[in-house]
Amino acid sequence: MDVADLTPGRARERFRAGERAPTAGWCRGWTQANLIAVPKELAYELLLFAHRNARACPVLDVGEPGSVRTRLFGGDLRTDLPAYRVYRNGRPVADVDQVVEDWRPDLVPFLIGCSFTFERALLAEGVPVRHLEQGTNVPMYRTNRPCEPSGSLSGPLVVSMRPVPEALVATAVEVSGRYPMVHGAPVHVGDPAELGIADLGWPDFGDPAEVRPGEVPLFWACGVTPQAAIMASGVEFAIGHLPGHMAIMDVRDDDYRVGP
Amino acid sequence: MDVADLTPGRARERFRAGERAPTAGWCRGWTQANLIAVPKELAYELLLFAHRNARACPVLDVGEPGSVRTRLFGGDLRTDLPAYRVYRNGRPVADVDQVVEDWRPDLVPFLIGCSFTFERALLAEGVPVRHLEQGTNVPMYRTNRPCEPSGSLSGPLVVSMRPVPEALVATAVEVSGRYPMVHGAPVHVGDPAELGIADLGWPDFGDPAEVRPGEVPLFWACGVTPQAAIMASGVEFAIGHLPGHMAIMDVRDDDYRVGP
Repeated sequence: MDVADLTPGRARERFRAGERAPTAGWCRGWTQANLIAVPKELAYELLLFAHRNARACPVLDVGEPGSVRTRLFGGDLRTDLPAYRVYRNGRPVADVDQVVEDWRPDLVPFLIGCSFTFERALLAEGVPVRHLEQGTNVPMYRTNRPCEPSGSLSGPLVVSMRPVPEALVATAVEVSGRYPMVHGAPVHVGDPAELGIADLGWPDFGDPAEVRPGEVPLFWACGVTPQAAIMASGVEFAIGHLPGHMAIMDVRDDDYRVGP
Repeated sequence: MDVADLTPGRARERFRAGERAPTAGWCRGWTQANLIAVPKELAYELLLFAHRNARACPVLDVGEPGSVRTRLFGGDLRTDLPAYRVYRNGRPVADVDQVVEDWRPDLVPFLIGCSFTFERALLAEGVPVRHLEQGTNVPMYRTNRPCEPSGSLSGPLVVSMRPVPEALVATAVEVSGRYPMVHGAPVHVGDPAELGIADLGWPDFGDPAEVRPGEVPLFWACGVTPQAAIMASGVEFAIGHLPGHMAIMDVRDDDYRVGP
């Protein structure tokens, strides 16, 4: 069965059983989300950070402290994502398939919108998605744009990149713009140097995507931004998803579409 | 000088000097906001409450703990609103002109969107605003609709009411809907009993507004909702504005308009 045809429940079963894969293209029609779980004493600063940097950090759902599911995610947050990244003192210390042992009772899980959610709409309008064609993870980059800080939290905006044929740039901007809760329109179109990205071939997260002649790189705010802030701010403990390996939610992508 | 023509700075000077008046109609073209300041240990629950009940509690700005101004409010939050309501253990204990003595260093001020902000747009489209005609405060009501709780915080949705001639109901809905960050379109049109409001003549906050033959009552989510939650939840200490006596912000109403 094509992974695009799986329900969120079936996909989560496979991840729980140990399958590890970027989730772009999985569960067509369902919303995907970034996970960032922090100790309760940091929850306010993180929620305010998300509010102040809403383009990168649109909050879809927040769980109770210690809970392993949320209203919009019916699986088990400790096992049902394909892979996780554990942070201690701002450093990634482990990329793992589950975090049952690491999930502390004071952890507050936040689910943040992900641009994978509007890729079905891009394809439907004829906009190709290179990392889907390549079968790779989307490329993500730290930028030179600082987020607005919140308390002890600060860090750079992270972006995802999709190369788009010049004639389809306007379409890609318009279509993604209809999904403001999953990052909406690109934050930048064109020259990566404008964002302080020296080389598209070396993403900070995920895999490189080939940019072909006549294509323009489009950059979308990315829900890995909170993880970049965890790192930049030396946070004592946090658990995120492994970038590109998302939580597949029990809510349709159409539920986040604005307009026709 | 007509109060509609005042700048936010001038209006705040007058409030600081002791003038007390509902702010509907003041400072035409500028955004107005609800104030709710809570101790830092409650800030997370309140911010999450606002997120979960965003129609009633759109967060425009959040100050640092103990701060008396925010990015979008250049005045002094302790003196520059026309009046305040102080809460202890969930009870309003004082309606006062300033809160200099009460402003604790652990208080986090939240500024929440206010529907006064779109009244200029209603007038511009020919929709009359009764409380402006009457020179009174807008009527506000507790409803039978519970908010989604957050931690220890729960309470009813509060609404403001404006009677609108039947022929202009669609216009009023459309125009206010262009301002989603200041409550947007009404949550209810028509029969107040649907919201559990027994008698429009006895608002829970503000003054009654005459509903004339051929007019329909329109109900908008109201930024007094956090104060209703403070009361319903027995919060130890909080400071709000006196309902209808808003913070006048240094940001234009047009900045919150979506579309043409």
